Amino acid sequence: MKRPLILITNDDGVDAPGINVLIRLMMQIGDVIVMAPDGARSAQSNALTVTHPIRFTKLEEKEGLTRYSCTGTPTDCVKLALYEIVDRKPDLLVSGINHGSNSAINVIYSGTMGAVLEGCENGILSIGFSICNHSMDADFSHFESHVLQISGQALKNGLPYGTCLNVNSPCGEITGIRISRQCVGNWTKEFAKRSDPQGRSYFWLTGYFDNKEPEAEDTDEWALNHGYISIVPTKIDLTAYREMDEVRKWDI
Amino acid sequence: MKRPLILITNDDGVDAPGINVLIRLMMQIGDVIVMAPDGARSAQSNALTVTHPIRFTKLEEKEGLTRYSCTGTPTDCVKLALYEIVDRKPDLLVSGINHGSNSAINVIYSGTMGAVLEGCENGILSIGFSICNHSMDADFSHFESHVLQISGQALKNGLPYGTCLNVNSPCGEITGIRISRQCVGNWTKEFAKRSDPQGRSYFWLTGYFDNKEPEAEDTDEWALNHGYISIVPTKIDLTAYREMDEVRKWDI
Repeated sequence: MKRPLILITNDDGVDAPGINVLIRLMMQIGDVIVMAPDGARSAQSNALTVTHPIRFTKLEEKEGLTRYSCTGTPTDCVKLALYEIVDRKPDLLVSGINHGSNSAINVIYSGTMGAVLEGCENGILSIGFSICNHSMDADFSHFESHVLQISGQALKNGLPYGTCLNVNSPCGEITGIRISRQCVGNWTKEFAKRSDPQGRSYFWLTGYFDNKEPEAEDTDEWALNHGYISIVPTKIDLTAYREMDEVRKWDI
Repeated sequence: MKRPLILITNDDGVDAPGINVLIRLMMQIGDVIVMAPDGARSAQSNALTVTHPIRFTKLEEKEGLTRYSCTGTPTDCVKLALYEIVDRKPDLLVSGINHGSNSAINVIYSGTMGAVLEGCENGILSIGFSICNHSMDADFSHFESHVLQISGQALKNGLPYGTCLNVNSPCGEITGIRISRQCVGNWTKEFAKRSDPQGRSYFWLTGYFDNKEPEAEDTDEWALNHGYISIVPTKIDLTAYREMDEVRKWDI
């Protein structure tokens, strides 16, 4: 049987420790192609580069691994790899391992998950892996066997078109795994205001996540806060089906 | 009764014709604050500016209208307006009118809809308006009464937390309005490859949308292709609830 073809990307850039852990793990189960941004592209969501062209560069080619860097966003990376690099559809796309959690509403901002949604749209089994530690020195060792097991089970069981996985790990000891839903909450106290030497104001994005349902035990936030790996099955269809009939009653 | 406070943004930039139509219309029903990018930010999705600070500039202040431009993305604009500008929570956020459709999977790439999802996350009634015409000379006149009617009905009826509206208009004669779901499909034939004078390749994003269900009459694409305005109730919870039990059966 042919080894699975695995496409890897991230939003922390091709040199980040997290993606190198992911490359090492995925080489155990398949042939790996990496197409990742040439530097940090955090919080790039599903952004596309449309006002200027993009390029990619081959960094390395050896048995079971070809590695490229790209000047674009994570979503650009996936599109470029699919249309300009691979000779067959990848069996699996994995994105990460992100330095920082992509739980709750962060899924809509995350470049890591943007790449996963892009793979999913293209009919590829796609998984985002993140860890609750922004440090470039983050320790991924406790997460590694789970990344392999989840990826292997995904390859074995598959997912229906339009569904992908958002997998987040706590930092320390892992209590277990929970299949969770996206926690309700929003970011608040968003900006740090500063003044430049000319006295003009400028603003740094900052703030904290306000969990609106800290007691609910079925959310990704609860899982992470209690030492569990959270897996949120995630979809690219944003239709609010339940509200359709209500809006049909409007006088429009 | 106090006039509604309406926050307006877009992704085509503060000078685009579409946002100026929207400002004129919204001033008929409320007090308007505009915080929009200082230039085009198409396909910026929910991207956030995290690697450098952002600024905003007041362009205009008169009875019922205050207008700002911002150096950030559409999502940055919403966050800045909410945390640094408004003295109370807006009653309505409208984004657009976008020059170009945001139907089907485009919802995940669109800066227009990124701003709408951001408003929705913050508990604000939020609507994105787009028209199927990329031209800066697009004619919005046939859409104007519908924009007013839909906004008025939204203010009257409200939407539950986590739900917003993605409203798209065909270019020409309008047959009616359909409450639709997000059409299944993906972009394909994505890149135009060119060579620079040094012989190095570069890639422009291009391609076309491949509608996977052209016969289905309940999608946004069908509505637009048959002359209807499409309204897709859209949500910020991406959890694939139906798949949770399946993934629970995996050996992980």
